[in-house]
Amino acid sequence: MYTITVIPGDGIGPEVMGATLDILKASDLEFDFQEARAGYACFEDTGTNLPDETVEMAKNSDATLFGAVTSVPEQKTVGSILALRKKLGLYANLRPVKSYPGVKAVYDDLDILIIRENSEGLYSEIEEYTEEGATALRVITRKASERISHVAFTEALKRGKKRVTAVHKANVLRKTDGVFRDSFWKVASEYNQMDDYRDIETDEFYVDAAAMFLVTDPYRFQVLVTTNLFGDILSDEGAGLVGGLGMAPSANIGDNNGLFEPVHGSAPDIAGKGVANPAAMILSACLMLNFLGEHQEAFKLEEALINVLEQGKYLTPDLGGTSTTEEMARAVREIF
Amino acid sequence: MYTITVIPGDGIGPEVMGATLDILKASDLEFDFQEARAGYACFEDTGTNLPDETVEMAKNSDATLFGAVTSVPEQKTVGSILALRKKLGLYANLRPVKSYPGVKAVYDDLDILIIRENSEGLYSEIEEYTEEGATALRVITRKASERISHVAFTEALKRGKKRVTAVHKANVLRKTDGVFRDSFWKVASEYNQMDDYRDIETDEFYVDAAAMFLVTDPYRFQVLVTTNLFGDILSDEGAGLVGGLGMAPSANIGDNNGLFEPVHGSAPDIAGKGVANPAAMILSACLMLNFLGEHQEAFKLEEALINVLEQGKYLTPDLGGTSTTEEMARAVREIF
Ligand SMILES: CC(C)[C@H](C(=O)O)[C@@H](O)C(=O)O
Ligand SMILES: CC(C)[C@H](C(=O)O)[C@@H](O)C(=O)O
Repeated sequence: MYTITVIPGDGIGPEVMGATLDILKASDLEFDFQEARAGYACFEDTGTNLPDETVEMAKNSDATLFGAVTSVPEQKTVGSILALRKKLGLYANLRPVKSYPGVKAVYDDLDILIIRENSEGLYSEIEEYTEEGATALRVITRKASERISHVAFTEALKRGKKRVTAVHKANVLRKTDGVFRDSFWKVASEYNQMDDYRDIETDEFYVDAAAMFLVTDPYRFQVLVTTNLFGDILSDEGAGLVGGLGMAPSANIGDNNGLFEPVHGSAPDIAGKGVANPAAMILSACLMLNFLGEHQEAFKLEEALINVLEQGKYLTPDLGGTSTTEEMARAVREIF
Repeated sequence: MYTITVIPGDGIGPEVMGATLDILKASDLEFDFQEARAGYACFEDTGTNLPDETVEMAKNSDATLFGAVTSVPEQKTVGSILALRKKLGLYANLRPVKSYPGVKAVYDDLDILIIRENSEGLYSEIEEYTEEGATALRVITRKASERISHVAFTEALKRGKKRVTAVHKANVLRKTDGVFRDSFWKVASEYNQMDDYRDIETDEFYVDAAAMFLVTDPYRFQVLVTTNLFGDILSDEGAGLVGGLGMAPSANIGDNNGLFEPVHGSAPDIAGKGVANPAAMILSACLMLNFLGEHQEAFKLEEALINVLEQGKYLTPDLGGTSTTEEMARAVREIF
């Protein structure tokens, strides 16, 4: 029995979450779904976009599912997702860039994993106004850089990937990305000596070159590991290559917790219409199942979704169909 | 008579430069090309990758053509191109993302201009080692943000563009990109009141969303204006969409100077073989001609290149042909 904290959030968040929970409830596993609040509506009701209670629940559950939130400019704090990543110590952000059948995309055969450092870099929240404007501090530590490099190698092995590529801008950010780069190569040299890892190649690219090669020759990449904001940008670019945010899930992982969320936002323009694509949320649930060690259920769920995509009968409008979120999710549930 | 400082640099730099100068010499204009040094070979010979003399020559000429340089890690200074941008006050980096015929690309009908702030941001060179790693300071000023926004609107008008889009990450970098964003909207509101600019729309995107939409729906964008490193990344992504760095020129513009360079580097892997694609350098010369006010010659030169691309007879290997740099350039020169 798994205790899962469920944070539907705002906009299409509750819609894709509801649809995904319905599917999970049909699995052979037992879940205790505990709903918690965060985001804009929560802020309006309670005065905070992230109640302590939500953080506590997430900390004490086996995993957390997060829908999407609308940000709260009035509160002048970071978004609730950034605060959750920090408070739960979720230092690794895993963002698969994977092609699925029936999805209009630039590439229909990609399966890359972008691993984004999730705790520092330009997300340090150390910003100051100056006389002339403002400054922000990009913080890169050896500890976080080594830690995320470890994740890259262990994830590569788990997924049968044969290459890990570090992405940085050490030609300009000589010190900060010098630290990131050196940490990566230090960790790489350790893994290179381990039997299981010996045939995993290592490589590096400047972030601008990586942004270009993702478009022109993504087959160079299998597992990409990079700093926080570069990972933010490259993973959205990658999502674009395989059909956009409707298909992009993510895992935020720490030593003791995992939080799983679609990369898309709350999409106020289509919220309430019941037509949001549930795939990114369903795939986020797959990542959660894998995190819980339920690899077979994860595999079955992804296969069920692929099946529905291949059939092409129950697709939401963004995928070229006319189905509702509910209908598409029901089709997945029936196969699963 | 125009005095042009010519910096061939390293690797394929001298090859594409030589080919491009041969074409320019065939024009009706009179040029005095003055060669200057920078880069790796220069460092080996003189102990510096950017002699003062080169900077002086560039300052005192009508424009500068820059090939490509190999960086000099030993010198522990920034690359010569970064130093030139700074020393010449070249605060605007114009990077067209334009499709050309016969070039294998994701899109064959793009004509976007990315305008990259070229003087600050994460290129501040304010980096420090700390106990745990290192920090870099991202510096955003109102002055530079307004200045680059002005460039965006005036370039949009010159090129008949109907939309200017600011790209930032003000949801996370609330202060620095808050300054950039506010500066942009301040300048936008000024231009919106001017007759000539009234029908230019204004818009904004987060950098991650922009990275995605450049892939899935680039038609949203006409002129993009952004901070230094975001511009570095997005313009390489854009180059990827229209066929890669072989086709990507750029202009570095200040109040008193202009420096024009292909986005590609010195490409040591193909240097010396005489097969580098000269198109990015030729297109950089087009940008220079436009900067000098020689719009008709610029137009003619671009048309000549387009003609050669359409013919498909004299193309370098990266474009699917078997011609040398020289042969492709000669074909352009004969039409020009
Ligand atoms: C909403 C925003 C703060 C967030 C980020 O920048 O990390 C989002 O873009 C993401 O990628 O999860
Ligand atoms: C070579 C490097 C320093 C440079 C930059 O980062 O600006 C290059 O990538 C560019 O885009 O001109």
